[in-house]
Amino acid sequence: MALVVQKYGGTSVADAGRIRNVARRIVEAHSQGSGVVAVVSAMGKRTDELLALATEVSPHSHPRELDMLLTAGERVTMSLVAMAIEDLGVPATSFTGSQAGILTTGKHGQAEIREIRADRVREGLSDGKVVIVAGFQGVDPDSKDVTTLGRGGSDATAVALAASLGADVCEIFTDVDGVFTADPRVVPNASKLKEVTFEEMLELASAGAGVLMPRSVEFGRRFNIPIHVRSSFHDGEGTWVKEETMEQAIVRGIAHRSDEAKVTVYQVPDTPGIAAALFEGLAASGVNVDMIVQNVSHDGTTDISFTVPLVSIEDAEEQSSKIANAVGAGGVSIDEGIARVSVVGIGMKTEAGIAARMFRLLSDRGINIQMISTSPVRISCVISGDEALEAVRVLHTGLGLDSEESA
Amino acid sequence: MALVVQKYGGTSVADAGRIRNVARRIVEAHSQGSGVVAVVSAMGKRTDELLALATEVSPHSHPRELDMLLTAGERVTMSLVAMAIEDLGVPATSFTGSQAGILTTGKHGQAEIREIRADRVREGLSDGKVVIVAGFQGVDPDSKDVTTLGRGGSDATAVALAASLGADVCEIFTDVDGVFTADPRVVPNASKLKEVTFEEMLELASAGAGVLMPRSVEFGRRFNIPIHVRSSFHDGEGTWVKEETMEQAIVRGIAHRSDEAKVTVYQVPDTPGIAAALFEGLAASGVNVDMIVQNVSHDGTTDISFTVPLVSIEDAEEQSSKIANAVGAGGVSIDEGIARVSVVGIGMKTEAGIAARMFRLLSDRGINIQMISTSPVRISCVISGDEALEAVRVLHTGLGLDSEESA
Repeated sequence: MALVVQKYGGTSVADAGRIRNVARRIVEAHSQGSGVVAVVSAMGKRTDELLALATEVSPHSHPRELDMLLTAGERVTMSLVAMAIEDLGVPATSFTGSQAGILTTGKHGQAEIREIRADRVREGLSDGKVVIVAGFQGVDPDSKDVTTLGRGGSDATAVALAASLGADVCEIFTDVDGVFTADPRVVPNASKLKEVTFEEMLELASAGAGVLMPRSVEFGRRFNIPIHVRSSFHDGEGTWVKEETMEQAIVRGIAHRSDEAKVTVYQVPDTPGIAAALFEGLAASGVNVDMIVQNVSHDGTTDISFTVPLVSIEDAEEQSSKIANAVGAGGVSIDEGIARVSVVGIGMKTEAGIAARMFRLLSDRGINIQMISTSPVRISCVISGDEALEAVRVLHTGLGLDSEESA
Repeated sequence: MALVVQKYGGTSVADAGRIRNVARRIVEAHSQGSGVVAVVSAMGKRTDELLALATEVSPHSHPRELDMLLTAGERVTMSLVAMAIEDLGVPATSFTGSQAGILTTGKHGQAEIREIRADRVREGLSDGKVVIVAGFQGVDPDSKDVTTLGRGGSDATAVALAASLGADVCEIFTDVDGVFTADPRVVPNASKLKEVTFEEMLELASAGAGVLMPRSVEFGRRFNIPIHVRSSFHDGEGTWVKEETMEQAIVRGIAHRSDEAKVTVYQVPDTPGIAAALFEGLAASGVNVDMIVQNVSHDGTTDISFTVPLVSIEDAEEQSSKIANAVGAGGVSIDEGIARVSVVGIGMKTEAGIAARMFRLLSDRGINIQMISTSPVRISCVISGDEALEAVRVLHTGLGLDSEESA
């Protein structure tokens, strides 16, 4: 029997009407002869409301108790969805992350899935039931404490469950129609992609395409579970994320993000070990460094630039200044007004010249490139933040991605 | 070390400010050298909100999923209370009913506690932590499904935990000051009782005193755990419920309830087995019969009257008519406009004449008594519902319970 794991986000289950709608979609898949496991998030903004309540009660950090609190959110959704499914004449049963056997590390708020012991899920399926599982949550088998998986955690639950159960597909239902060649709010002529490879999706996700988190794409790739990103509001096909696609696009899409800042440590003495000291220091203070660029030195010094999340900029500045001082660098400068624009496509592995076309398109518009970094399937440029949307549009048109009609 | 189990109801934890207040009370008990386990209910009206949500999603009954849903309520409270306690510098940890080892029967919505395996609670206590436990919930060890205990369930959790842990006292914090000689909203001169015996409290609770449910009193009596009913809004002493009291009151208090109806099956042939058939039939259809009165027969027939909860009146009428028909009784009459007024006091065991005084006080006011039933420590009269409050006041004054000042 075919087995499908579906995942419904907070918007899709925001009220009683939408929950009944989700139940209908699940029952539809079930009536087509598939075993169905549905992973659900908390209703609408409930997680944010619970966070606000926690802040109101306590200004301090209580990781274990916060996870206890937040996991109440999916518990509410999962039981309501199960009720609505039973009302449609299909037996259903709901499980918390712990009951579904989602075993995680002990890092509250950011736990990683270690193993899935989905015995109760399998039992439910073999009894002919639809199984509803609370997303975003698990249990640390050592402490027996409940944990949460952090942002995008419900997607990770769904893809990991699909892998563990050997599902045929993991369907991620969301409030958009799929993955687009660019953000349709920025580029009206962006078109929905039929297919995208895991590798491309990973690059798009880390470059700013918000529809999937890199972690769940990584799960899909590792266990080769096709992911179907589709709308929870209609039946149309969405975007398939899979190992190989029929068509090998040279450029699959454009992504951008504006939630980073640029740090430059300039006039760094060009001796071995200095970059190591700098990034070890940043890692130790919990700063997540992304793009790093160091150019060849002249005059025996070099400049090292890197991007960090805007939220970590204070830690990054303090740490960088300390190390700059220690190694006798010229100083540190910070730019919070940057954006990163990326072009992603698996065809770039074989097709040369995309980088040159990208740089020419930007410079023809007078957009200055501050940093460049590349992977085999991606080229990213850091530019001024106020030019980001224009850059995305220019690249989308210039690289031939515009569709005939508006998205 | 002394060990105290405290229970805080929904009103006491209705918002962030009250939760911090509850945390202060708990920390106070802890700082006086006691081990503290606190059982908490869902915030304010949260359980009702979740019930309404379930009704909005589904008009049908889904007992397992409803319990999953409702138990989210206490989960939120327990983690918030634990956070607020930690903010006061005392280590705290929260457990769901299942984590606290509250093992129950499998009857969703009305589960009974079978056993408590409080290993994690004991561990927490011996680590010097305050332990917060979600009230009203447990787990059926056979199905591994989460269950709820029904109305007053959090009190039952608290008293049962106190018994299992061998606590010195179980403190029930509530929005009233304690147990009163009568409902202070009805009798302004009612006074708070310092002490009441388990036996009296059981009678008062089933006769309509809403402050404690009979089930938790029964737990306290069986394991001899003193229960201290007190206000969550101030530090004053409340009412102690215990095995023996210093003072043996002849009349401890007056209770009344108006949520019952009277059923009379009249002209029942006075042959053996008919009452059995009637009440077996009622029990089988789930009707909870309370007071039963059958008088001596004349003319070979007798009348049997009994009270049932108003909510069960349709079932009771159908069932009674069926049996009345089958045994050739004269018919069935229903009175939904009744009230029951009860006088409770352990001294009645030895002191005669209270019944006579009660009947005289009522008849002097022209209040007609429809049914009478007694236990060793209680006399109950069924009267017309619209005379209930007057009857309570008359009895309170006439039996010498009025205090000098208003409650």
